[in-house]
Amino acid sequence: MGLTVGVDVGGTKIASGVVDQTGAVLAREEVPTPDPVGDDADEIAGAIAGLIRAHCAEHEVEAVGIGAAGFVDKERAVVIFAPNIDWRDEPLRDRVKAGIDVPVVVENDANAAAWAEFQFGAGKDVNDLALLTVGTGIGGGIVLDGELYRGAFGVAAEVGHMRVVPQGVLCGCGSRGCWEQYASGRALVRDAREMVQSRTKGSGALADACGGEAERLDGKMVTRLAREGDDAAVALVAEVGRWLGEGLASLTAVLDPAVTVVGGGVSAAGDLLLDPMRAAFEAELTAGAYRPILQIRLAEMGNDAGIVGAADLARRRPRTA
Amino acid sequence: MGLTVGVDVGGTKIASGVVDQTGAVLAREEVPTPDPVGDDADEIAGAIAGLIRAHCAEHEVEAVGIGAAGFVDKERAVVIFAPNIDWRDEPLRDRVKAGIDVPVVVENDANAAAWAEFQFGAGKDVNDLALLTVGTGIGGGIVLDGELYRGAFGVAAEVGHMRVVPQGVLCGCGSRGCWEQYASGRALVRDAREMVQSRTKGSGALADACGGEAERLDGKMVTRLAREGDDAAVALVAEVGRWLGEGLASLTAVLDPAVTVVGGGVSAAGDLLLDPMRAAFEAELTAGAYRPILQIRLAEMGNDAGIVGAADLARRRPRTA
Amino acid sequence: MGLTVGVDVGGTKIASGVVDQTGAVLAREEVPTPDPVGDDADEIAGAIAGLIRAHCAEHEVEAVGIGAAGFVDKERAVVIFAPNIDWRDEPLRDRVKAGIDVPVVVENDANAAAWAEFQFGAGKDVNDLALLTVGTGIGGGIVLDGELYRGAFGVAAEVGHMRVVPQGVLCGCGSRGCWEQYASGRALVRDAREMVQSRTKGSGALADACGGEAERLDGKMVTRLAREGDDAAVALVAEVGRWLGEGLASLTAVLDPAVTVVGGGVSAAGDLLLDPMRAAFEAELTAGAYRPILQIRLAEMGNDAGIVGAADLARRRPRTA
Amino acid sequence: MGLTVGVDVGGTKIASGVVDQTGAVLAREEVPTPDPVGDDADEIAGAIAGLIRAHCAEHEVEAVGIGAAGFVDKERAVVIFAPNIDWRDEPLRDRVKAGIDVPVVVENDANAAAWAEFQFGAGKDVNDLALLTVGTGIGGGIVLDGELYRGAFGVAAEVGHMRVVPQGVLCGCGSRGCWEQYASGRALVRDAREMVQSRTKGSGALADACGGEAERLDGKMVTRLAREGDDAAVALVAEVGRWLGEGLASLTAVLDPAVTVVGGGVSAAGDLLLDPMRAAFEAELTAGAYRPILQIRLAEMGNDAGIVGAADLARRRPRTA
Repeated sequence: MGLTVGVDVGGTKIASGVVDQTGAVLAREEVPTPDPVGDDADEIAGAIAGLIRAHCAEHEVEAVGIGAAGFVDKERAVVIFAPNIDWRDEPLRDRVKAGIDVPVVVENDANAAAWAEFQFGAGKDVNDLALLTVGTGIGGGIVLDGELYRGAFGVAAEVGHMRVVPQGVLCGCGSRGCWEQYASGRALVRDAREMVQSRTKGSGALADACGGEAERLDGKMVTRLAREGDDAAVALVAEVGRWLGEGLASLTAVLDPAVTVVGGGVSAAGDLLLDPMRAAFEAELTAGAYRPILQIRLAEMGNDAGIVGAADLARRRPRTA
Repeated sequence: MGLTVGVDVGGTKIASGVVDQTGAVLAREEVPTPDPVGDDADEIAGAIAGLIRAHCAEHEVEAVGIGAAGFVDKERAVVIFAPNIDWRDEPLRDRVKAGIDVPVVVENDANAAAWAEFQFGAGKDVNDLALLTVGTGIGGGIVLDGELYRGAFGVAAEVGHMRVVPQGVLCGCGSRGCWEQYASGRALVRDAREMVQSRTKGSGALADACGGEAERLDGKMVTRLAREGDDAAVALVAEVGRWLGEGLASLTAVLDPAVTVVGGGVSAAGDLLLDPMRAAFEAELTAGAYRPILQIRLAEMGNDAGIVGAADLARRRPRTA
Repeated sequence: MGLTVGVDVGGTKIASGVVDQTGAVLAREEVPTPDPVGDDADEIAGAIAGLIRAHCAEHEVEAVGIGAAGFVDKERAVVIFAPNIDWRDEPLRDRVKAGIDVPVVVENDANAAAWAEFQFGAGKDVNDLALLTVGTGIGGGIVLDGELYRGAFGVAAEVGHMRVVPQGVLCGCGSRGCWEQYASGRALVRDAREMVQSRTKGSGALADACGGEAERLDGKMVTRLAREGDDAAVALVAEVGRWLGEGLASLTAVLDPAVTVVGGGVSAAGDLLLDPMRAAFEAELTAGAYRPILQIRLAEMGNDAGIVGAADLARRRPRTA
Repeated sequence: MGLTVGVDVGGTKIASGVVDQTGAVLAREEVPTPDPVGDDADEIAGAIAGLIRAHCAEHEVEAVGIGAAGFVDKERAVVIFAPNIDWRDEPLRDRVKAGIDVPVVVENDANAAAWAEFQFGAGKDVNDLALLTVGTGIGGGIVLDGELYRGAFGVAAEVGHMRVVPQGVLCGCGSRGCWEQYASGRALVRDAREMVQSRTKGSGALADACGGEAERLDGKMVTRLAREGDDAAVALVAEVGRWLGEGLASLTAVLDPAVTVVGGGVSAAGDLLLDPMRAAFEAELTAGAYRPILQIRLAEMGNDAGIVGAADLARRRPRTA
């Protein structure tokens, strides 16, 4: 009993898997994401539906969960707004569901990942958890008292858009000073490029890594150099870690979670990221001397987090049903 | 069936009342708060116990809830840390309980007030609510999916200590840039005093209100002048409102509540505070064009919020019991 | 040849002296400052004139310089705006001059002090100097290429009003985030009071110094405790030093002076202030690795700086005459 | 009598001209800048010398001024540090001077431009002027009391590196929060690219301008769209203007100039830039109600500013000679 399908809709590929109730992935399928420019909602939905049908042909599937970046409504049916795909009030569930017999739910991808870590990964021993997926931006997911917290309108845990600097850097969301402009791969790359372009002291290895063309620098190059011990790269990663820790102190003042799990591409830097994060967190946490301190842990579910989380959330009856 | 006692431990007085299940206060008693300097925990506990015994002698009381400023542990028994009374790991429940037959729980005072607004006041029509008590500082209480949210360690909703300005104003908690240093009566008074001391243009009415002695200015004077239309006072209140709205946008990115209730002394300024708060909130809310907007409402429970909320929370079986 | 009189108009007293061309003060007189509330310009001018006449009766005086807080016009005649005395377009020179035979000029008090340090004190070996008088606020004076720099309209060197924090602390000037709200005695006292009021960890000695009444704390208490080694007071002084150094890095990007002289009441903290100031300055100075670094020195002229500087500037022919 | 040569060393070309004492350019020559990577100082110096010799062959030249980006020492001989060319303590004057009979001086390029505006352009009616060259970064030049101000070590007027945001955006100089990270073409492009990448509401025209490839956006595209009335581009230019005005308020607190001249590529936006700049300046200027307000003017010398300024400064005897 109890196989469900999880789908993880990313910018370059759509990954999917059949997942059992222990979180094990029994089978996988993936396709490239159709070009997200233009009125292509049907095409993406079609690709998702194709993956689902393939799994259903091979396994007895009870339900399907689709994880996608963006704001998902409380009914887990409509993508209200997706930053990278041109989705506005996109009825993704209904588009995909046509011709599929089992229940389908849509989840925010970071919520799905948070749930996977909570059920099967780095947070399986606690009741309250915050996930930070530190990639280009910051994705967030919150589990409170053992339940995924979605908010009154379905769009809770958009933690990357807490404002950390008044009149700060412009964010793609249209506001300024959002946390994800300071504590993400985007910040890492922006700063590294500035150093290379300006030939800042110590930026030699960064310049070499991109052949002197700053625009070619990406986050992986910086974290790789950091792991190799390049001082400038180490400092850049530490700066991201510091901002992560400082923002987490604010988040903790609100949520008081037991554990924060850090995933995403930048977390590949490991303790080079987490040590400065922990130090900044403890320095900034209000009244830190008088309270239990949460644990900051690396994510454990890797690239499967989205698939496993979406699949497992599909297994649970929707509150709104 | 179902009378409980609520106690609200304030800096100057300890108020208490017998509360029924509709939130009505049937009887009241209060005493001055014993001087909070020194090793006086027993004395305050004794005063609280006296009030409780008086109520129990007159009514059939099922349980008692005590609301106090400070961090309360998850067991609702110990005040881990109270900023204004010298309590560190103070076992308040056990001290008070001696000689009292009914269950006693301790709650953070803003949590109690949030619960009162949720059950009987400005939020009784919704499932997710954030309360902001804007007095000298900012107290916070969060109700999620119909439950008071206490956090993993009991100290959630300390929203006044979200950092809103890096390297900002020193807060009594030891950190810098906390929200309550910008969006509170403290900020209102600090700014008004600076204007009077420096004879800033337009500060004449403020100076008159305190007889030219800036140190005598208090929040009530400023809000009164604002209601009377003094431009400088109106601007000062609006500035606090702006910071409230900007911080609420961050809080909403995390929590996505349906309603935010604003109470506390500064809320007496009414729309002079709430209009700029709403404008700033909508301007700063991430992707505000694509999501439902929460409602910002004035609190309705007035000074009874602490008593009623603590009493009603005592009626509910503690999760940890 | 060459005696002049310098007058230093302060908030509590008006000090004056006869000064020779070596900067030596040959005779002194002082009177309390008439209460600066109300339309008392005549009274203060009268007190100043009285002091001048007394000196002229005893010495052969060539000219008089009056140093006053506030904006002084380019003609060195009119106080355009004084923050603490109710002067707006006050023709101070002409009021004082009635009945006095020698030339009289009015100077900004910090400009006068800067000139004294440049001619006779800590900057007598250089051509370019910035003075920071760190008291309740920050007064500034600038000497460039051997000349006092007054600006196009006479109000240059109001360095305390550089903005260092967007949307920062309200300043008496009406703006927000001015340097003097962060790097002055005012900041020191504001932070110390917050600590005492909130019983912040480590604030015991500060509380003892003011008998637990935060409003009684002043800057001298904090610097005294810092010199005695109290950790909290040392940290508060260091924080002011850090802001001084960071702001000085900005000032240096503009002015590139050879020496910065630090005077004023807070400078009594000595290296407890200057060491963190120097560290922050060097950390923040743009391209600091590639340029000569200015020296940060303590002022040497003490309380005489205003008298001596005003007197010496009076000796020099006004450019506008 | 009195022809001098001015050279303007830019990133892509080296422009030069013969200039008379009225600021007229009588003849021009230019060559591409040799690739600035590697140990190419000799090559650039050679190219400069070639241009000079060509002019000297045709005209009777009295002196030569070379304007270059970077820190120039007080002797006007050595480029201490150039951000874009790999110059560290580069003895440019001596390298160029070999084989040239007339005096040669090196000037910071923005200083040269400021001098040109002061002598012949937008500031020829005043004695105190600040120039802001708003291109990729912010270049600055300061004229005080009719003299170009170079600072104690030759590196004054690096105004783009005033810090305007604590913990702000990383600058190529190695510091964070420098003015030029907020009030320049770099900021304009950074924000525009973020909008296109994130498909921010209203960014359609910006996306069209670069064919959807954010990395291809440049400052000219944004200012052109702004002039054509695109709301998003107008807002981006206005944001740069606001930061310019706010930073200028700080600069004015220090320098109190009579006129600020705004040049550089971004100034092509005209009043779309200057109107918000003026509004922000007046809102932020300390005690603005009590002082004369400086005028903000567009530069008049165009691309010739560097040549003409360097040539005219060469005509004046160096103070250090």
